Amino acid sequence: MALIMSSPNVPNGSSSSEKNDAYDLITLGETMWRLSPPGNTRLEAAHQLDIKLGGAEGNVAVGLARLGKRTAWWSRLPDNAPGHHVANTLRSFGVDVSGVAWGGSRLGTYFVEFGSPPRPTQVIYDRANSAASEMTPADFDWSLLSKTRWLHLTGITPALSASCLETVRHAVKMAHDVGTPISLDLNYRTKLWTMDEARPIFDELASQCTLVIAAARDGKALIGGDTPPNWVGRGLHRRWHTPTVIVTMGERGASAFDGHDSYEAPAYPVTIVDKIGAGDAFDVGLLCALMDGKSLEDALRYGNAVAALKMTMPGDLALVTHDEVERLMSQPTEGIVR
Amino acid sequence: MALIMSSPNVPNGSSSSEKNDAYDLITLGETMWRLSPPGNTRLEAAHQLDIKLGGAEGNVAVGLARLGKRTAWWSRLPDNAPGHHVANTLRSFGVDVSGVAWGGSRLGTYFVEFGSPPRPTQVIYDRANSAASEMTPADFDWSLLSKTRWLHLTGITPALSASCLETVRHAVKMAHDVGTPISLDLNYRTKLWTMDEARPIFDELASQCTLVIAAARDGKALIGGDTPPNWVGRGLHRRWHTPTVIVTMGERGASAFDGHDSYEAPAYPVTIVDKIGAGDAFDVGLLCALMDGKSLEDALRYGNAVAALKMTMPGDLALVTHDEVERLMSQPTEGIVR
Amino acid sequence: MALIMSSPNVPNGSSSSEKNDAYDLITLGETMWRLSPPGNTRLEAAHQLDIKLGGAEGNVAVGLARLGKRTAWWSRLPDNAPGHHVANTLRSFGVDVSGVAWGGSRLGTYFVEFGSPPRPTQVIYDRANSAASEMTPADFDWSLLSKTRWLHLTGITPALSASCLETVRHAVKMAHDVGTPISLDLNYRTKLWTMDEARPIFDELASQCTLVIAAARDGKALIGGDTPPNWVGRGLHRRWHTPTVIVTMGERGASAFDGHDSYEAPAYPVTIVDKIGAGDAFDVGLLCALMDGKSLEDALRYGNAVAALKMTMPGDLALVTHDEVERLMSQPTEGIVR
Amino acid sequence: MALIMSSPNVPNGSSSSEKNDAYDLITLGETMWRLSPPGNTRLEAAHQLDIKLGGAEGNVAVGLARLGKRTAWWSRLPDNAPGHHVANTLRSFGVDVSGVAWGGSRLGTYFVEFGSPPRPTQVIYDRANSAASEMTPADFDWSLLSKTRWLHLTGITPALSASCLETVRHAVKMAHDVGTPISLDLNYRTKLWTMDEARPIFDELASQCTLVIAAARDGKALIGGDTPPNWVGRGLHRRWHTPTVIVTMGERGASAFDGHDSYEAPAYPVTIVDKIGAGDAFDVGLLCALMDGKSLEDALRYGNAVAALKMTMPGDLALVTHDEVERLMSQPTEGIVR
Amino acid sequence: MALIMSSPNVPNGSSSSEKNDAYDLITLGETMWRLSPPGNTRLEAAHQLDIKLGGAEGNVAVGLARLGKRTAWWSRLPDNAPGHHVANTLRSFGVDVSGVAWGGSRLGTYFVEFGSPPRPTQVIYDRANSAASEMTPADFDWSLLSKTRWLHLTGITPALSASCLETVRHAVKMAHDVGTPISLDLNYRTKLWTMDEARPIFDELASQCTLVIAAARDGKALIGGDTPPNWVGRGLHRRWHTPTVIVTMGERGASAFDGHDSYEAPAYPVTIVDKIGAGDAFDVGLLCALMDGKSLEDALRYGNAVAALKMTMPGDLALVTHDEVERLMSQPTEGIVR
Amino acid sequence: MALIMSSPNVPNGSSSSEKNDAYDLITLGETMWRLSPPGNTRLEAAHQLDIKLGGAEGNVAVGLARLGKRTAWWSRLPDNAPGHHVANTLRSFGVDVSGVAWGGSRLGTYFVEFGSPPRPTQVIYDRANSAASEMTPADFDWSLLSKTRWLHLTGITPALSASCLETVRHAVKMAHDVGTPISLDLNYRTKLWTMDEARPIFDELASQCTLVIAAARDGKALIGGDTPPNWVGRGLHRRWHTPTVIVTMGERGASAFDGHDSYEAPAYPVTIVDKIGAGDAFDVGLLCALMDGKSLEDALRYGNAVAALKMTMPGDLALVTHDEVERLMSQPTEGIVR
Repeated sequence: MALIMSSPNVPNGSSSSEKNDAYDLITLGETMWRLSPPGNTRLEAAHQLDIKLGGAEGNVAVGLARLGKRTAWWSRLPDNAPGHHVANTLRSFGVDVSGVAWGGSRLGTYFVEFGSPPRPTQVIYDRANSAASEMTPADFDWSLLSKTRWLHLTGITPALSASCLETVRHAVKMAHDVGTPISLDLNYRTKLWTMDEARPIFDELASQCTLVIAAARDGKALIGGDTPPNWVGRGLHRRWHTPTVIVTMGERGASAFDGHDSYEAPAYPVTIVDKIGAGDAFDVGLLCALMDGKSLEDALRYGNAVAALKMTMPGDLALVTHDEVERLMSQPTEGIVR
Repeated sequence: MALIMSSPNVPNGSSSSEKNDAYDLITLGETMWRLSPPGNTRLEAAHQLDIKLGGAEGNVAVGLARLGKRTAWWSRLPDNAPGHHVANTLRSFGVDVSGVAWGGSRLGTYFVEFGSPPRPTQVIYDRANSAASEMTPADFDWSLLSKTRWLHLTGITPALSASCLETVRHAVKMAHDVGTPISLDLNYRTKLWTMDEARPIFDELASQCTLVIAAARDGKALIGGDTPPNWVGRGLHRRWHTPTVIVTMGERGASAFDGHDSYEAPAYPVTIVDKIGAGDAFDVGLLCALMDGKSLEDALRYGNAVAALKMTMPGDLALVTHDEVERLMSQPTEGIVR
Repeated sequence: MALIMSSPNVPNGSSSSEKNDAYDLITLGETMWRLSPPGNTRLEAAHQLDIKLGGAEGNVAVGLARLGKRTAWWSRLPDNAPGHHVANTLRSFGVDVSGVAWGGSRLGTYFVEFGSPPRPTQVIYDRANSAASEMTPADFDWSLLSKTRWLHLTGITPALSASCLETVRHAVKMAHDVGTPISLDLNYRTKLWTMDEARPIFDELASQCTLVIAAARDGKALIGGDTPPNWVGRGLHRRWHTPTVIVTMGERGASAFDGHDSYEAPAYPVTIVDKIGAGDAFDVGLLCALMDGKSLEDALRYGNAVAALKMTMPGDLALVTHDEVERLMSQPTEGIVR
Repeated sequence: MALIMSSPNVPNGSSSSEKNDAYDLITLGETMWRLSPPGNTRLEAAHQLDIKLGGAEGNVAVGLARLGKRTAWWSRLPDNAPGHHVANTLRSFGVDVSGVAWGGSRLGTYFVEFGSPPRPTQVIYDRANSAASEMTPADFDWSLLSKTRWLHLTGITPALSASCLETVRHAVKMAHDVGTPISLDLNYRTKLWTMDEARPIFDELASQCTLVIAAARDGKALIGGDTPPNWVGRGLHRRWHTPTVIVTMGERGASAFDGHDSYEAPAYPVTIVDKIGAGDAFDVGLLCALMDGKSLEDALRYGNAVAALKMTMPGDLALVTHDEVERLMSQPTEGIVR
Repeated sequence: MALIMSSPNVPNGSSSSEKNDAYDLITLGETMWRLSPPGNTRLEAAHQLDIKLGGAEGNVAVGLARLGKRTAWWSRLPDNAPGHHVANTLRSFGVDVSGVAWGGSRLGTYFVEFGSPPRPTQVIYDRANSAASEMTPADFDWSLLSKTRWLHLTGITPALSASCLETVRHAVKMAHDVGTPISLDLNYRTKLWTMDEARPIFDELASQCTLVIAAARDGKALIGGDTPPNWVGRGLHRRWHTPTVIVTMGERGASAFDGHDSYEAPAYPVTIVDKIGAGDAFDVGLLCALMDGKSLEDALRYGNAVAALKMTMPGDLALVTHDEVERLMSQPTEGIVR
Repeated sequence: MALIMSSPNVPNGSSSSEKNDAYDLITLGETMWRLSPPGNTRLEAAHQLDIKLGGAEGNVAVGLARLGKRTAWWSRLPDNAPGHHVANTLRSFGVDVSGVAWGGSRLGTYFVEFGSPPRPTQVIYDRANSAASEMTPADFDWSLLSKTRWLHLTGITPALSASCLETVRHAVKMAHDVGTPISLDLNYRTKLWTMDEARPIFDELASQCTLVIAAARDGKALIGGDTPPNWVGRGLHRRWHTPTVIVTMGERGASAFDGHDSYEAPAYPVTIVDKIGAGDAFDVGLLCALMDGKSLEDALRYGNAVAALKMTMPGDLALVTHDEVERLMSQPTEGIVR
């Protein structure tokens, strides 16, 4: 339980002062406009679209910023109204966007049509040729990686373009050089690439990271064979030798394997308002707790709590506070607080 | 199971080329403006109304058109903005509205106030003296009945006015003359007439149709006595000698009796967004599957699937595709497709 | 100028105490739901409708109630959600609706599509067979006419149905019997009847009223010939021998003829938000000022001021206060009051 | 069961004519603007607010007025647009607001952020220094207490200010003097005062009332010790000697103790749309039934039914009719009534 | 004045029967989603977007369809919800979309931010790599060009991609081969290409067309030198030898030169609601009048009237009727029609 | 013309590097929620409120931040959702809010009801007892005044409370001590205090400032007598010996007096969307130009341009860019940029 605290690779609250960091976490990736018709209206019959933001890395940056962490989000944005809208919105929630590279012709967007069981929620990506997909290693000031406690990446960015893949590889190398720990959420997207395309990249990146987060289904697909769910973490650890592997299992919660022991934490029951972004919210809670020196098991619980709260609000962003997370973990109330 | 395919009365895919049809299905009836306050607001306290379309026959025409069938909808519409709104909307989903008779003073409307259990959803009709209620046999080109694979009618139209009843009788006679099969959905509405008023008309019409669809409750009321639910189809068949009788049972699914055998198909579990139009959506799936040469049992399942999807979207119309229906029937996913 | 105060037929503030009145004004007529798409959207392409109230007499009752007069509105309303919505809304602004007769199948409605020059604003009535059109003299407690200082009628009600005409005739007779003065706003509507149909009714009613208000255009059409605008009032007075005739001239203001002298008052310049109801608002200001003992000329000015303010707000109702009217008349400010 | 009818302190339908009452119920308290973002949007990220009314006593007055009772609501409101908005809205639903004292600088408001389990709904009060909090005994015409069948108070008003407490004390005394029965809903609010602050006031007031309504949790907190839920009513009766004590238990229904016997009635299952105001709706049903001469047990059931219906509609107000309540109690339908 | 009617190149009503045409007009080009924040909100600060359609050729097809012409619109659309939304909407207004080629990854979109003087309205295109930009000559059934009375093209399509330019060239050639007259609206867009890039293409295409429409400013830029406005038509005619040249001059109206004479027609004064699409609306009126056998001068007036009406409604589409156009031309009313 | 550049008191671009400033401008004051019904709806009849921010100093900070200046806004905000909403929104536009003091019970709010001539726009303040009104000198880090190029204050803050006045006095003293120039916009508000109350405070503060901005009307009221408009600047300069006095004259533009010469710049004609905040936007342009080393006369023009653009967008904030301002000043276009 105390493993994570003694691990030299896992930064936490106590080590922060020594390093005199500028940031708690830097992340890079694409944030898009998420356009969705109100309620359960079909996109084909829509007359209006709500504008929200979406993008795994930006979601993580916002969630952590609201929990008091100093986070920076790097990306490329077009220098037009939609591009500035994204930067403004992330900044409004406290994320440092000064590292954004401005330029490129368009903002990536995606359309969400909210279903209701048995009709699934549909995502239509319109992100090809976005400014973010044109990011290159030259866009960012890599020296800042020595001034952050943590670097967070996802498996989405490498799928966007060759230059994006190159940028992620460069980020991993640069972080390694200065000893900054890296978390990677695989975030496998079937609409971006096949698992066969993704596997070698995932293997290459994951084996250099401190912490890898994978959905159980994706973990099984990576390992192949008949891996039982509770052995996915172990299997991925064996595959990559990543110090810590987190496996998320949706309504069944999340588990962790730190090379020695397995931990598990159940999900909180939720009346879902908007499920999108729940995985990123889990990352927010997990990373925040680890940075605060909590045990791996407590961090799983913290992640589950942030994810649960996220699902009760519209939009990808986890607009929650420490108080709310802790109240849910200690004395849940479903009624009215007045 | 294969009865329906060999029945000379039931058109299906294979017969289409022989007859060189212009339409797969013609239907006639009233489509109204459905005006409802947003969410669960009481109509008495409303400030805004959403405009949707409603009307059993138009709903069927739209649903089938989206599933690739060539459908025509006949009615009478006022030559004003609300009337054109209706024609435009049906046409937008691919329905042929060239047979509409223009004229009459007003568009029928109805107000819907959405409840939440235990408060029922309320419908207030304001359809008296509508243009549609003034339709007469002289309004339509009956020669087209020889160029359609199917005629669809409901038990609502005969209740609207004497001239509507006359028109429905004329339609039945004309279809008979050219051997076009007729489906009839009883759609008994307590706010339009009593069962005692409806019974002789239902009996007269149903006994001339190829396929009759009835809610179990209405079927029982027609037959009287202590008919057990699973005998309603048989009872109606005995009463009318209709080749095929379909009995819908809400959350308990649907059943069919083809004179020899009974079939049953369970409903799909649904998180309901808007229930209105679910029965029409069932008809859409049922008729589409029969036209495509599927068995009666498969057609029940197809009907249930279309009805389930309809209930997940606002408005009376079943805006679904074959892909969506088949995905639901083969590998349901409730999550996010991205 | 002081004529109106000394005229025995024109009630004003000073006479109120003597008569121990229950109401300052009773009016009867139809109030409908006014349904309009937002902004300048064409009705044919609309997806939403705003619900407002409209109806000349109810508009007058609301406007006067807000200016402190005790007003009652009589009509017939259906005992359903739309009917109660109308009563609730009128009551919310202080109108006594206890005299409403409940019953009838439907609430009259009308659709408004807001134009922008050179496209005119279009009104589509859907009021046939409304509950209000079924009102009869038996619906109301005529003894109350002896307890009101004023009865207000319009030329719309007689056009709605035979029983409505009968009710208006009855009202005029009953008011006459108890000596209650009557105002009549002709409110000629081309979509309800032709001038040839309206003329004999207007003549019959106007000749029994204390005060008649007519649009200049309608007055000219009534008189015929080449009446110059500023002689319309005189012409109508000669025709009907009505003690006071008011002629409204839109952007050119209003004039009055009291049998001896003519008065005129210019309209206030307005940046129009919603013109509908401006005529009723003029009546509100005119009648309020007369009841308060103001001169006929001042009453014209008061009417113009209320009409101007009404046009700056959405909806038919003149939601203004004495303070606002007087500020406009004394020291207009177009800026921001903060 | 018939106790309540024979009790001289509990007014009911039969006694009404004897007393020639002007009102069935007078209540006094604060009604605020309730401002909430649409859906489940977080207040911190909101762009729009829906305006509804909230305030326990006004809610009770509206609910009863809609059930046919003549109710008056007394309070202090600022003489500005928000203040008049409140009076208009209460009046629109039939409440007599002629006793409102006008003046004071601001309307109390509160913000509601709707949660979804496990995120609780949050209320942020902004009611300090409101006009209502400045009410004094001099604001109201206490002689009217002899012309009402019932006075209704809540435990919220005494918590608002010293002058509010004084006004409530005065109301209790004045009602006592003329023998008008008093109901008191404790409505303990943790954001207004602590239970230690509230207890002596609750004790003082409750011991002078005819009927006291308390949430089980608050009742237990008042009594202290390990009172089992079904003994809370008895315990409160022993504490205050109030003739009738009602204990509400949320999803578990409500119970009553009349000094001799205990009654209990289960809650109706509800798919909740908006829970706020459910307690006031219970009071509405309870008091209405008692006034109509129903038994205490039936009154509990009536209260539960009104509360259930209230939770199916947005806003604090129970916009229900006798028909709807009785249909729910006799033959519940969750489907569509058409 | 009668020149146009006797010209063999200009189709009109009388020739229609001879040719037994399937269409009055075929057009090809891109229709996009036009996404704009409500009112005058800046796009950078928006939370919602209204979905409308935009695209010069589709706009022309819709306008003409509503005026009774049989129009077909050809393009390439992605086979997803946004793509079907476009087809549905054009079809709803009566345009034949059966010639659409389905496929391609994305729907072209553009953002509109409505200004208010002195802030200009801004258009941000996001149309690169759209399905429409991938259209090729192989996508369409060119044999239909012999069954249409008219082909309409614009100078936008050639700027979208090489294959689009090729398609337009092919269309011009095919129409020529079967003698179908061609209209071309230059529609020069500075955000798509420079005038130097556009000039040779415009010259190539215009010289093969029957009718060319150009904005005065663009015409001058094409010709160069100090051409006075009223000589632009003549100059373009000399340049291309196009039988008829139309020059639009915004608020100053439009002019025509038919090789012999010049005609001019003033614009109608308009209180603008939405200016976008006014040029296309002018084309609608012009082409409709010419097809109906009106003189060139009358056609200019008809075009100006349709353009004026279009500017009074939100969205690019001219949702007008012949009645409305003729009422504006004969007896304009700015008031309320009721 | 070049006076301002040579003045030692007026900071501009060139001096920035020497001083190694952290901020270009610090301002302190109250920012409130501005709640307004949509369109021209009367507040008394509203159902929804749009949330915008308002407050002179925050408006200035946002406008300047968007023009590239590093601005900080100091205030006191309640630590609840409305308070964080304000901080988030200001931060989204690039304002540094790290100096905000958190605490206090409520966020100041104000209601705006938009008029239309001749009905004025009404502001109802609800700002008493706000967190901001409780600010004290102890809330802020005054040492930062030596690290900013400019301090901006308004005459609103001193009117809010005694502690606010004390804070403003302290700010003036602290800025004086470190030689930081101070601008003061009098912003006289009749709803906060009388001119007699304000005069001594204005005199005290203005005489210590580098630059004072006053509306002509307020300047005249301060000076008294029959000051002709073009002498107000001179008069105020004589009164206070302020180096530079700016006088704003609404639609007539603005003037400046620098102790030697007078400058004037006309306003830009605007089709007004929302006038509120125009004065603050003028300050933004004026101060930005001065900081960029522009002449006083050019700065007036820049201020007028920013004010004109602000009035074309909803909300108090001037969301404009340098490009837009310069395009307006050099080559205004009112059409569509596409």
